[in-house]
Amino acid sequence: MRKVSIVGAGMTRFGEHWETSFRDLIVEAGVKALTDAQMPGQDVQAIFGGCMASSRFIAQEHIGSLIADQVGLKPIPSTRCEAACASGGVALHSGWLAIASGRYDVVVVGGVEKMTEIGTSRAALALGGAGDQEWELFNGASFPSIYALMACRHMHDYGTTEEQMASCAVKNHANAVNNEYAQYRKKITIEQVMNSGYVASPLKLFDCSPLTDGAAAVVLCASEKARKYSDAPVEIFSTSQASGTLSLASRSSFTSIDATRVAARDAFDHARLTPKDVDVAEVHDCFTIAEIMAIEDLGFFKKGEGGKVSEEGRTALNAEISVNTSGGLKACGHPVGATGVKQAVEITWQLRGEAGKRQVNGAEIGLTHNVGGSGGTAVVNLYKRGD
Amino acid sequence: MRKVSIVGAGMTRFGEHWETSFRDLIVEAGVKALTDAQMPGQDVQAIFGGCMASSRFIAQEHIGSLIADQVGLKPIPSTRCEAACASGGVALHSGWLAIASGRYDVVVVGGVEKMTEIGTSRAALALGGAGDQEWELFNGASFPSIYALMACRHMHDYGTTEEQMASCAVKNHANAVNNEYAQYRKKITIEQVMNSGYVASPLKLFDCSPLTDGAAAVVLCASEKARKYSDAPVEIFSTSQASGTLSLASRSSFTSIDATRVAARDAFDHARLTPKDVDVAEVHDCFTIAEIMAIEDLGFFKKGEGGKVSEEGRTALNAEISVNTSGGLKACGHPVGATGVKQAVEITWQLRGEAGKRQVNGAEIGLTHNVGGSGGTAVVNLYKRGD
Repeated sequence: MRKVSIVGAGMTRFGEHWETSFRDLIVEAGVKALTDAQMPGQDVQAIFGGCMASSRFIAQEHIGSLIADQVGLKPIPSTRCEAACASGGVALHSGWLAIASGRYDVVVVGGVEKMTEIGTSRAALALGGAGDQEWELFNGASFPSIYALMACRHMHDYGTTEEQMASCAVKNHANAVNNEYAQYRKKITIEQVMNSGYVASPLKLFDCSPLTDGAAAVVLCASEKARKYSDAPVEIFSTSQASGTLSLASRSSFTSIDATRVAARDAFDHARLTPKDVDVAEVHDCFTIAEIMAIEDLGFFKKGEGGKVSEEGRTALNAEISVNTSGGLKACGHPVGATGVKQAVEITWQLRGEAGKRQVNGAEIGLTHNVGGSGGTAVVNLYKRGD
Repeated sequence: MRKVSIVGAGMTRFGEHWETSFRDLIVEAGVKALTDAQMPGQDVQAIFGGCMASSRFIAQEHIGSLIADQVGLKPIPSTRCEAACASGGVALHSGWLAIASGRYDVVVVGGVEKMTEIGTSRAALALGGAGDQEWELFNGASFPSIYALMACRHMHDYGTTEEQMASCAVKNHANAVNNEYAQYRKKITIEQVMNSGYVASPLKLFDCSPLTDGAAAVVLCASEKARKYSDAPVEIFSTSQASGTLSLASRSSFTSIDATRVAARDAFDHARLTPKDVDVAEVHDCFTIAEIMAIEDLGFFKKGEGGKVSEEGRTALNAEISVNTSGGLKACGHPVGATGVKQAVEITWQLRGEAGKRQVNGAEIGLTHNVGGSGGTAVVNLYKRGD
């Protein structure tokens, strides 16, 4: 298999874009990524785009064609990948395969979602499609309630507290202050999280990632040709995707996401590395409990210790491992189809040393972790600077 | 790049499945394909699934996870690809890349759609997402009306007649009589088509493919390992995907689909073959005018002659080139996400000599042609027996 590197990265600001259309978001992210790679459009040979619920959000399918058309890159192939909130990660894995195959040398992977136009209740229904419509949604289980069940069980089994969960949100907001692309660039306190009102007990408003508009893109290139476009290519040297049951009720455990564990084990095995080698990680914190489970399932900390180590600050910027330097889904925002690609953008900047005030000192190995639904899909990638 | 072969194929009956769920359709097609390959499930390493509008049809996204879960193949990666009516073809191209890359040896590619439950008017809105929501749908252009514009222009430029278009439907129904999986297994006459009532002038009801429930699946394997599973593997020896503008109005021509022409040229170039080498082709006849444009754009006949040659019977079974032996989208049915995979199933059976009364004599080279929307995406694949 050929090696694959990122030679360009770009994203829109994440937030509420009332005056920017779905199409404009795509173009902005794509052009930024190509400009970053100093690459003319005609060098791009294929596009893979992550988008979850454009059908519900903007009544539009066929997003691959729309992207190629809008960015002026037709007639190259353009494929939409959908795996709920892991759509971006899955598009990245597919784009990686496309180059590894030898069929394409240069592929743009994008992710996009425009979520804020249709109102919160309709958005919640759209997002519900990430879970099991027949066994969860139809019976009233929204996504906060599904993750709330996981949180309850984690608290029961391991003594995790609401304050420990809150500490993840506080840390991610602190990181987002230094990210000009983040939706919420303001510090919050544990007290503010605790007083933010229950959405689905024990999860409160500030335990939840927001509705967000945004897009992100990376330019992938066969590593052997990467130096043509970048002095500092970032290699995706291991990528793994796994699936789990669609519904939470079918799982053997509520406190762990099997798909994450399988994908992480596989990614580390391929790379011949261990979790201890990772300097900076973007993990899927759609809810604070999801970050706690993620840092356990990825092997950074032992099962059950995620809440404690978060509260102790061991996942803060330049602590034991820097988790969600972008602000994560919680504070940077979560345009569901774009998140998996945004994670790759952030890691690219970190490994190039371009992350400004949120830079992780001496970052050499990065990881992204993107989850769909309550764990029906997970993608784990490892990145390093160089070829 | 590694070579890729089909070692198993299967599909559900296409039609109205009032007592079979979306999930059951997937399982039936997947199990049939694996059984055909005599392959145990644990040999499968990844899944790619084509599905267009599950969000609108059954309120469910995250179809990749659902498939892996339902067929009992989690935790292997499972990716949904969406490109409107070309979703199946795009999934096939992505599955092909996944094996060509060397990362996976065995991949199941499936396609599924369950369209008949929500009623015709809501289905038409769902299908409208294949076109340009802002510039076509919002202004009242449904898919029959978009293809009707193409038909009008084809009639104007080349003298194509309504009777010539009708002849495609008559021929495809004749083929479907011998296909036990087809939705409509009955012969029709030119007069019946002409009297079937206008949907969007000049297209009448019998010029249009129907709403259909159904699923199809093929098992792809690295050709070097294909003999382990099949005595008669069918190699996909060339595959090409291309994109076009999302809206018809942006095109330079209404009588030709650029994405088809680009994909076909690329597929034939890769294969070092010409259209004359093809014995059997499944082409995208969502409307009869689409088949006429397809046989021109694919290079089987000169531009403008598609209507005439159809009327002359030169695309009938065992004529000059056998087109849509399955019955095509018109008579076999068109569960949009499944169609691109069903085409591969039909060609597999043809090249194995297993197509019964609709068998093309001495078929050696097959082609599939799958279109999304009015031409925003096209996938063209070439198949041959062997390896």
